[in-house]
Amino acid sequence: MIETLVSAQARMLRAKTAAREIALLSDDQKTRALEAIAAAILADSAVIVAANAEDLARGEASGLSLALRDRLRLDDARVAALASAVRDVADLPDPVGRVLDDRMLENGLHLQKVAVPFGVVGSIYEARPNVTVDIAALALRSGNAIVLRGGSAAEKTNSALVTTMRRALGAVGITPEAIQTIDEFGREGARELMHARGIVDVLVPRGSAELISTVVTESTVPVIETGAGVVHILLDASAPLEWAREIVVNAKVQRPSVCNSVETVLVHRDAAERLIAPVTAALQADGVVVHGDADVQKWGMNIVPATTEDWATEYLGLEIAMRVVDDLDAALAHIREFSTQHTESIITTDDSAAHRFLAEVDSAVVMVNASTRFTDGSEFGFGAEVGISTQKLHARGPMGLSELTSTKWLARGAGQVRA
Amino acid sequence: MIETLVSAQARMLRAKTAAREIALLSDDQKTRALEAIAAAILADSAVIVAANAEDLARGEASGLSLALRDRLRLDDARVAALASAVRDVADLPDPVGRVLDDRMLENGLHLQKVAVPFGVVGSIYEARPNVTVDIAALALRSGNAIVLRGGSAAEKTNSALVTTMRRALGAVGITPEAIQTIDEFGREGARELMHARGIVDVLVPRGSAELISTVVTESTVPVIETGAGVVHILLDASAPLEWAREIVVNAKVQRPSVCNSVETVLVHRDAAERLIAPVTAALQADGVVVHGDADVQKWGMNIVPATTEDWATEYLGLEIAMRVVDDLDAALAHIREFSTQHTESIITTDDSAAHRFLAEVDSAVVMVNASTRFTDGSEFGFGAEVGISTQKLHARGPMGLSELTSTKWLARGAGQVRA
Repeated sequence: MIETLVSAQARMLRAKTAAREIALLSDDQKTRALEAIAAAILADSAVIVAANAEDLARGEASGLSLALRDRLRLDDARVAALASAVRDVADLPDPVGRVLDDRMLENGLHLQKVAVPFGVVGSIYEARPNVTVDIAALALRSGNAIVLRGGSAAEKTNSALVTTMRRALGAVGITPEAIQTIDEFGREGARELMHARGIVDVLVPRGSAELISTVVTESTVPVIETGAGVVHILLDASAPLEWAREIVVNAKVQRPSVCNSVETVLVHRDAAERLIAPVTAALQADGVVVHGDADVQKWGMNIVPATTEDWATEYLGLEIAMRVVDDLDAALAHIREFSTQHTESIITTDDSAAHRFLAEVDSAVVMVNASTRFTDGSEFGFGAEVGISTQKLHARGPMGLSELTSTKWLARGAGQVRA
Repeated sequence: MIETLVSAQARMLRAKTAAREIALLSDDQKTRALEAIAAAILADSAVIVAANAEDLARGEASGLSLALRDRLRLDDARVAALASAVRDVADLPDPVGRVLDDRMLENGLHLQKVAVPFGVVGSIYEARPNVTVDIAALALRSGNAIVLRGGSAAEKTNSALVTTMRRALGAVGITPEAIQTIDEFGREGARELMHARGIVDVLVPRGSAELISTVVTESTVPVIETGAGVVHILLDASAPLEWAREIVVNAKVQRPSVCNSVETVLVHRDAAERLIAPVTAALQADGVVVHGDADVQKWGMNIVPATTEDWATEYLGLEIAMRVVDDLDAALAHIREFSTQHTESIITTDDSAAHRFLAEVDSAVVMVNASTRFTDGSEFGFGAEVGISTQKLHARGPMGLSELTSTKWLARGAGQVRA
């Protein structure tokens, strides 16, 4: 095949050229393109599942863990879910062309700030085939071309998915070069992507803290960091027992493997005796192992002694850390030291404590009396989620389609010159 | 002095601690702080000018060019201008606390997206004392602490300015640690600043293309690139002679040393005979050297033959490149190849050409029938300018105070958990 002789850089340049065409597509054209992609994924289900079986066999032979193989596995039902997710993105409003500022200067120059596509979005992620389809759909919906670099364990699956999506674009008269994969170029390809400043406009890594840290450190392309969540809930002195118990249990147990699940519960000393026993008992009833400091051990049962390492741990499972703090200041200091600035919540009926927590906690999402699990693009009403940004530049918190756009100023004059 | 024993990193950590206090200041407190700084700069004029004289003497001894020494030089009038610029920033509306999104979810959770300070802003720039004061004032107005790294040629001047500004903060009861300089740590200090991810939230380099390129390539802290301007004007087939001549001359001559001045004029072949002679003559009458291709040489007088290098050159002086293009597509292709995506303008009375130019040119500011010199924060009505971003992440084009803020989601509930 000629195709494999092409370099990663050549693929990225094709995406850059294609981006010019994609940026000018109308809302309708993008909707039709995504519907074509969804239909093609459904139609190609057998081919995709067969390619996936090759990856799974290779993974099993090379000792890939059962959990990772489960994340990688596709069957007809999961392929149908991929197609359905693309249809959901097709239905979202077009974020391109929104007028974000409009001003007429005294000299008659008419200025408009409009939302435009970035151009080329790059994504580096792990062996999750759903990310391949999700990110491609979100990029296209927002008028961008996409360069995909998935985990090598999913190479055959991704290749099949990309082939299907590219053919679907071609069939509706849109350049298939708008979707590129560079999986086959391995680590060197990923390195080229991270240094493709001037070709790739923004890079969105998705996956483990280690992967994201590598991309953030190495990339010269601007990165949107979608980071880890060492998420805190503070049970204030005034925290009602029912809210404390239900919110902590929901935030830990409802889906423990995701970044918005709670990892550390801080308990105000004045509420320790009242809250620790029932809250830890409720967690334990749902199978959660509680790591606690000496005070938590005093009021709770079956508490595993916590170490400093626990305060910095994103368990992503049925474990939780709990610590008693002397007051709100001590809680804020703990959060400053250990939070990854993703989401924190305070349970309180004290308005001044709530006010201080909202003002002083420097995280993407700061909550009062709610489960941290609400930090999510769908819950926020964005209709889809590109990821949850834990950086402060460009986007912070759950990112919707509009975060995959940049802006451009249009200035319309009639011969104006500067005095 | 103990002070010089402190590392650049320690200074940055002090800024990070101070940032918590600065972020919570009210509009009034920030206004008063900036007024105090302006007054202190005026009061300390003699000390600042004396420190500057030391830098100038050192610069002269080490062979610093006359032009650079002029940029570096402060006298009482220039110090007064610095103070006045701070007062202008003091008068700007507070960008912090604006509610940018407000939504009530069906479950009763109230979400608000509010503008918050970044935290710590870093700036790396050249030996221009006005940047020291400008960036510090803009950072404080937007609730941020600042870490300054100016050119070593201005070290004494910057040190005097920072001492004055810090003392002024202290005098109004605000922590002086919000303003830090790391000039004395030289290149190693700059390197530490570029790698201070987690301490410094955003880095805004200002200066030459080379300096900005170094920062963009080396920094792990998110950067806002304020880049070079290889700015184009396209004289379309329909361009009226008067507009073409006045806009090109204004865009080149009114202030040739800045990034929004025009560097290359493209002329539609159908207008070459009509426009090139009068436009080049007008430029030459103002002392501009015109570099042109064979077609320009044919229609103009005293044209210096242009090379490919000219198309990529930011002259920043009284020189200009001119090229004849066959049509709009050829013009767009030239701009794609050579533009730094800062500002481009088309002179035309043809609506469809104007429409295509606005849609297809991928630059921060795209104009029709106006001088590129309008790409400027003050002209746009922002009241002050942090710089002109040529990247697509976070900010694009002239940046006002609001571009020195990030956002935070506040979620107020009453016990909501996720189903």
